[in-house]
Amino acid sequence: MKAVVLLSGGLDSTVTAYHAKKEGHEIYALTVNYNQRHKKEIQSAKKIAKTMGAVEHKIVDLDLRLFGGSALTDNKIKVPDTPARGIPSTYVPARNTIILSIALAYAETVNADCIYIGAHCLDYSGYPDCRPEFIQRFQQMADVATKRAVEGRPIKIMVPLLNMDKKQIIEKGKALGVPFELTRSCYKEGRKSCGVCDSCRIRLNGFKEAGVRDPIEYE
Amino acid sequence: MKAVVLLSGGLDSTVTAYHAKKEGHEIYALTVNYNQRHKKEIQSAKKIAKTMGAVEHKIVDLDLRLFGGSALTDNKIKVPDTPARGIPSTYVPARNTIILSIALAYAETVNADCIYIGAHCLDYSGYPDCRPEFIQRFQQMADVATKRAVEGRPIKIMVPLLNMDKKQIIEKGKALGVPFELTRSCYKEGRKSCGVCDSCRIRLNGFKEAGVRDPIEYE
Repeated sequence: MKAVVLLSGGLDSTVTAYHAKKEGHEIYALTVNYNQRHKKEIQSAKKIAKTMGAVEHKIVDLDLRLFGGSALTDNKIKVPDTPARGIPSTYVPARNTIILSIALAYAETVNADCIYIGAHCLDYSGYPDCRPEFIQRFQQMADVATKRAVEGRPIKIMVPLLNMDKKQIIEKGKALGVPFELTRSCYKEGRKSCGVCDSCRIRLNGFKEAGVRDPIEYE
Repeated sequence: MKAVVLLSGGLDSTVTAYHAKKEGHEIYALTVNYNQRHKKEIQSAKKIAKTMGAVEHKIVDLDLRLFGGSALTDNKIKVPDTPARGIPSTYVPARNTIILSIALAYAETVNADCIYIGAHCLDYSGYPDCRPEFIQRFQQMADVATKRAVEGRPIKIMVPLLNMDKKQIIEKGKALGVPFELTRSCYKEGRKSCGVCDSCRIRLNGFKEAGVRDPIEYE
C-alpha cells in the first residue's frame, strides 16, 4: 500500500516515515519548501528520503514569506531563545492545514490510501494545528473533499506520534533504526543547530530523558 | 472590515469579489497560480483586482503540475469538449482545499475576518470540493486551525454564490457592475475562449439565459 509521508527533515517526521515503512507502506515522501528560515531541513529531508528508500520524494515550493507573520517566515521577527507563554512567534499561520492539503492532492494523484504526519500534542510548542481536534476535523473535511472520497475511498490521515512525548518518540526512533544524525530540528539558519530555540530545547531534553546520544552538532 | 477574496480571474470569483466589496469589505485579493493550463486567467485576475480597487493582490505560485492528475495540470490529458458523466477530468485533486488553506494563512496574517470564495453547486462541473458539505467541513476545520480560532475569532468562509445558478450569478454581476469583459472562464490556453469546454459552455448558457451579452471573444 502506498502512503504519502510529510517529511520536513525533522525528528518527528522522520520517525513517522520509518514507522510508515515498518507498517509495510511504499513511501511517497513530500516536503513543502515554504521558504522557512530553517531551509536546511530540506537538505535533511532529501538525505532521509534517499536513505530510507522512498519510492519518490517531491519537494513543493510555496513561498509563505509572501505573507510573513511568523518568526520562521519573516526575518524581522526573531526566533525566541526562551519558552513563550501561549502560542509562540514561531507559529506559521495555517501551515499544517496547507501542508496536509498539498499532501491530499499528492495522495490522490498517486492513489495513496493514507497520509502520515508527525504532529503530536505533548512536548510541542502549543501550535493550534498540532492538536487532536485539528487532525480530526481535517480528516472530516478530507472525507468529502476529493474524488476518491466521493467514490467511498477517502484518504486517511495517520498521526502515529499524536500522543507521544519527545522521549517516547526518540525511543521509538531508536527501535526503528532512524538515522538521527540526518535529522535537523533547529529553527535557525546556522550550519550547526543553536541548542536554545524551542525546537532544539525540546529535542535535547527528549534525548536526555531517553538516555540516547543526540548525534547532531550544536553551537 | 478586511476580507480575503479568492480571485481566479473567472466569472464566479469576480462576482464574489464585487459582492464582498459591496458588503463594505476592504479587499485582499488572492490568486493561486497552480500552473494551470489556462494561466491566462491570472492576467484577468490582475486587471480585475486593479479595476475594483483591491487593497492588495497576492499571487502565490504552487506548481500542481508536479503531481498532475487533471486535464488542467497535465498536458497529456485533453480538456473535454463534451459534458462528462460523473466527475470530469478537469477536476484538480484537492484544489479548493489547497486554495482555501492558503487563503486561511493570508487572512490570518493580514487579520482579515473572512475569506470569500466563488464556489457554487448549481451549474457547475460536479467537483467534490464545490459542494456545501465540503465548505461546511472546511469551516469546522478552520474553526480550530489557527491562532485566531484559539483566541475565539475564527476566520469565516463566505460563499455568497453557493446556491445560485449561472443565470443568477450573471444577473447579480450585472447589478454589481462587474466588468465581465475582464473575466476569463475557458479551460484552454488559446488567446480567445474556446466556447466548447465545460466552463465556456456553462458560461455561454448562463449569459443566454440571463439575456446579457457576453463581451469576451470566442473562437
